[in-house]
Parts: sequence; structure tokens; C-alpha cells
Amino acid sequence: MNCRFKQLREEVEAELHKIFDAHAGAPPRLLEAMKYSTFAGGKRLRPMLVTASAEAVGGNSAKTITTAAAIELIHTYTLIHDDLPAMDNDELRRGIPTNHKKFGEATAILAGDALLTLAFESLASPGPSGHNPPPEIKVRVIDIVAKSVGAAGTVGGQEVDLEYEGKEGDIEKLEYIHTRKTGAMIRAAVEAGGIIGGGSDGDIAALVSYGLKIGHAFQIIDDILDVTCATEQLGKDAGSDEGNLKMTYPALIGLDESKKLADKLIREAIESLAPLKGDTATLAAIAEYIGERKH
Amino acid sequence: MNCRFKQLREEVEAELHKIFDAHAGAPPRLLEAMKYSTFAGGKRLRPMLVTASAEAVGGNSAKTITTAAAIELIHTYTLIHDDLPAMDNDELRRGIPTNHKKFGEATAILAGDALLTLAFESLASPGPSGHNPPPEIKVRVIDIVAKSVGAAGTVGGQEVDLEYEGKEGDIEKLEYIHTRKTGAMIRAAVEAGGIIGGGSDGDIAALVSYGLKIGHAFQIIDDILDVTCATEQLGKDAGSDEGNLKMTYPALIGLDESKKLADKLIREAIESLAPLKGDTATLAAIAEYIGERKH
Repeated sequence: MNCRFKQLREEVEAELHKIFDAHAGAPPRLLEAMKYSTFAGGKRLRPMLVTASAEAVGGNSAKTITTAAAIELIHTYTLIHDDLPAMDNDELRRGIPTNHKKFGEATAILAGDALLTLAFESLASPGPSGHNPPPEIKVRVIDIVAKSVGAAGTVGGQEVDLEYEGKEGDIEKLEYIHTRKTGAMIRAAVEAGGIIGGGSDGDIAALVSYGLKIGHAFQIIDDILDVTCATEQLGKDAGSDEGNLKMTYPALIGLDESKKLADKLIREAIESLAPLKGDTATLAAIAEYIGERKH
Repeated sequence: MNCRFKQLREEVEAELHKIFDAHAGAPPRLLEAMKYSTFAGGKRLRPMLVTASAEAVGGNSAKTITTAAAIELIHTYTLIHDDLPAMDNDELRRGIPTNHKKFGEATAILAGDALLTLAFESLASPGPSGHNPPPEIKVRVIDIVAKSVGAAGTVGGQEVDLEYEGKEGDIEKLEYIHTRKTGAMIRAAVEAGGIIGGGSDGDIAALVSYGLKIGHAFQIIDDILDVTCATEQLGKDAGSDEGNLKMTYPALIGLDESKKLADKLIREAIESLAPLKGDTATLAAIAEYIGERKH
């Protein structure tokens, strides 16, 4: 973990706090539930991708901070809803009780709904830091983010994941699910950063290639961790995907092949950054960090 | 029900179909669940308010159609999530099984999530009909809508409503809940229509006054209907609010006083339209229609 990561993470945390401070009028228990999961020790990977992507196209990364925070709010909402009893039924997340275990199902559903809504408000509004992209950029980013996390993206991936629970699957179905569940939001993060940073269509294409590859690698490594780690190390129910009979990369192509595929994707992701004229060091470091998680 | 209502409703339905047709790539079962509740025979009151508000400020109402449809998608999502077992636990809505009774809890939660997301996509994107407001107007509308339906609006109202379930309440708490649960989205609908229609700040203030009053009347009348109608007439569990020991206007101020208050609010709502220079006939008719529901 390098210093730039730490700095970016602190900037995102500060922006998230400012966003919540500007909504202190909401019902206290709902707000508490929203903050509980938002500040539960996430890696802030997606917001870092937004900011680092603006840097990579030579843009002003400070302008992305509200968008970066909004992406993290959406990520948090997906975790809360995915953990619900009707979904993956997880009791632990990042070493602490899941939102519905702490606040009850109703409030957990509402906290997720409110975080998703707050994200779109943050993408549209001037934002608490005043780093305010022009309206035509905002509208483009909102469109991309909404497409990525909706029925054809994150939500659709979760639906198909649940439909295949306990059923025989193949690598094609697994990739269909992951492209949507994990990949879509990572892709949206790099696109949003690239657009706010003023990147060309070619720049955005390079960022999307990078994003798809690290997203793919991320999910393979998540699957690898799920079979190799004990519960206490991971902070969530180890083997819970296996318990639910989900398709995983190690189950379908074996552990060694999974690791090789992840390494290849990380390498290719870093190669995708070659055409970019800005500072790609942070994006490269994020890719390497994702690759190292598997050890 | 006048001819203008019928025409507006058909335009909204057509736009909703076009929006779904443009998302045919989403998982079929998820899409089916989203459409099931969207086309379950809603009155399309909120989208009609968007379009009629643009007319009332002398604007081009055709430009509001995608925004109007988006507001209906958000309304549909709130109904699906409110009906869930963890929330109001309703089995019937508009005479047919609620979304989770038909598709299961997981898909119902995801269908709601996807409808909310699709709404924001629709507010940001060019829209299937090409009636595309300029980006600075879109961003303003998205900000207003998101604030209205988030933690300080609709979602917050539902949270506090659930927190007070089975507890003694007073008229102040009841109005706190309804201002947020029902009023906020109606207010957003008229504001969005007024802004897209090119209304002045004074026009928007008149529309907001109208919106708050019909929203208030709407909820009082909903409470009245809940105690006076049989299950088959209403198409949802009659007395279900009472069964959950919720606060209602008839319970707190009596049936007669509730009716008088609703009539007064409808009258005042129509009076609020006086300063507007455009065609306010449809807004006035909507207010009267809401008032007549109580008989």
C-alpha cells in the first residue's frame, strides 16, 4: 500500500463525511445505518479508480472527488442489499455484523435505497467540496453510472447469480455474472474519471480495457481468497459462496489456472495504460495491489 | 376522469414501454418483475403532474415525457420495497399479488433497485422519445428528484413510519411521515415539470404550494379509504395500516374532520395555481380528482 493510496483514501473519506454532514436532517437511525456500512473499513478501490483515471488522462483529479465518493456510496448499497437474508444471507462483512444484522432488514433495505439515491444526488449536485464538473459532463457520467449499476449491470448480475445458485454452471455463465456484478461498476469508475479528466475517446477506450481486466482479475482473486482463507482473516463467512453452491473460478478451472489467469489479466491491464499521456502510476499500482491480494 | 387524463396516461405508458424496450438486454426475469409492477394499473398521477406542471407555466409539455416516466419508475420502486415482508408485508397491490409474492423477495428487492437506477438513467439520458432537456436543466431535476426520494424524503419517511409502527403517535409525527413518504415525490414531480417547462422561481413556488397541498390531501384520503373500503374495492389489504397499528388521520382526528381537512387542502391547492400564466386546467382537474377519491 503506497502513500498515494493512503492520501486518496483519506480524501474520499473526508468527502464522504462532508456528504453525510450535509444530510444531517434525515432520520437519525437511517443515517446511522447508512454511515455504518459506508465507514466499515472499505478499501475505497472504486473511488481511487475514479481519481486515478482522471490523473491518467492528464486531468485535474481534484474535480473527481464527489463523483469518486458517489461511486463508493453505490458500492456500499450493493453490499448491504447483497448481504440481505433474501439474497446471500451473510452475517459478517469486513469483520463486523452486516447492516441487516445490526439494524434489521427493513432499515438495511432502506439504507441501501437511500445510499443509491444519495449517490445520484451527489453526481448531480455541486457537491460539498465545490469541485463541480460542468452539467454536460455530469449528465454523461450519471448516464454511464446508472447503466452500469442497473438491470443490465450490477443488479442484473446479482439476479442471474441468485438464479444460478445451487445449479451447474459453466465459465461463460460465471463471466456473464461477474462482468455485471463486479466489472460494470469498475468500468464505470474508470470511465467517469476519464471523462471528468477530459480524456479523449481513445483515452476512455484504454481506461475501459484496463477496467475490464482488473475487474475480471478482482473477481477471480475474490473466488481464490474465498477457498483459501479462514473466516477470521477475510472478515466475512469464508466459503460462503461454496456453501451456497455458487460457481467460482477455482471450482470451474482449478486453483492454479485461476491464479495464472489473474496474473495474466493484471499484466494486460497495466499494458492497456500505455497509450495514456497522463500519470498512470496510481492505476498501475492499483492493478498490482489487486494482483497481490491473492497471496 | 377526463380525456386529457386519458391522453396523458397513454403517453406515459408509451414512454415507459419504450424505456423498457431499450433495456431488453437485462436478465429476462428481472425485467419481467420490473414491468409487472410498472404496468400493474397505476393511476400515473405523478407523471401527469410533471407534464401538467410544464403546461401550467406555459412550457412545452412534450419535453417532460421521459422525466414523467422516470418519476413513475421511482414511484413503482417505492411500492415494491414498501410491500416487502420486512416492511409493510402486503400480499396484494392493485388487486394482484405484490412483486415479492409473484417473483420472490430477492428479485423484488432487485427489481426495485433496478427501477430506481433506471429512473436516474432516464433522467440523464437523451430518452427514447428524443424530448431532451438541456444538461443544466437535467442536472437540476436530478438533484431535486434525488433529494426528494432519498434519506430526507421518501426513504426517510418510510423509515420513521416503520419506527412508529405499533407506537402512540400524534398529528405532528403523522405529518412528518407523510410530508416525506408521499408529499416529497409529488413536490418533486411538479417542480421537475415547472423547471423543464421554463417556469420562473415564482411559478415554481406556486407549483410547490399546489403540490404540498394535494400531496397532503392525497394521504388523508388514502387513510380515509383504508378505513371505509372493503378489500375487494381497494385492491389491497383493507385496514392493513390499522392492522399494523399505524397512525392514520381518521384515528387521530376522526373521519369527519379528515374529510373536511382534505376538502380544504384541495380548495387551497387549486387557489395556489392562480398566479400561473399557462394552462392550469389539468392540474386543477387532478386536484379535484384526488378530492373525489374519498367518496
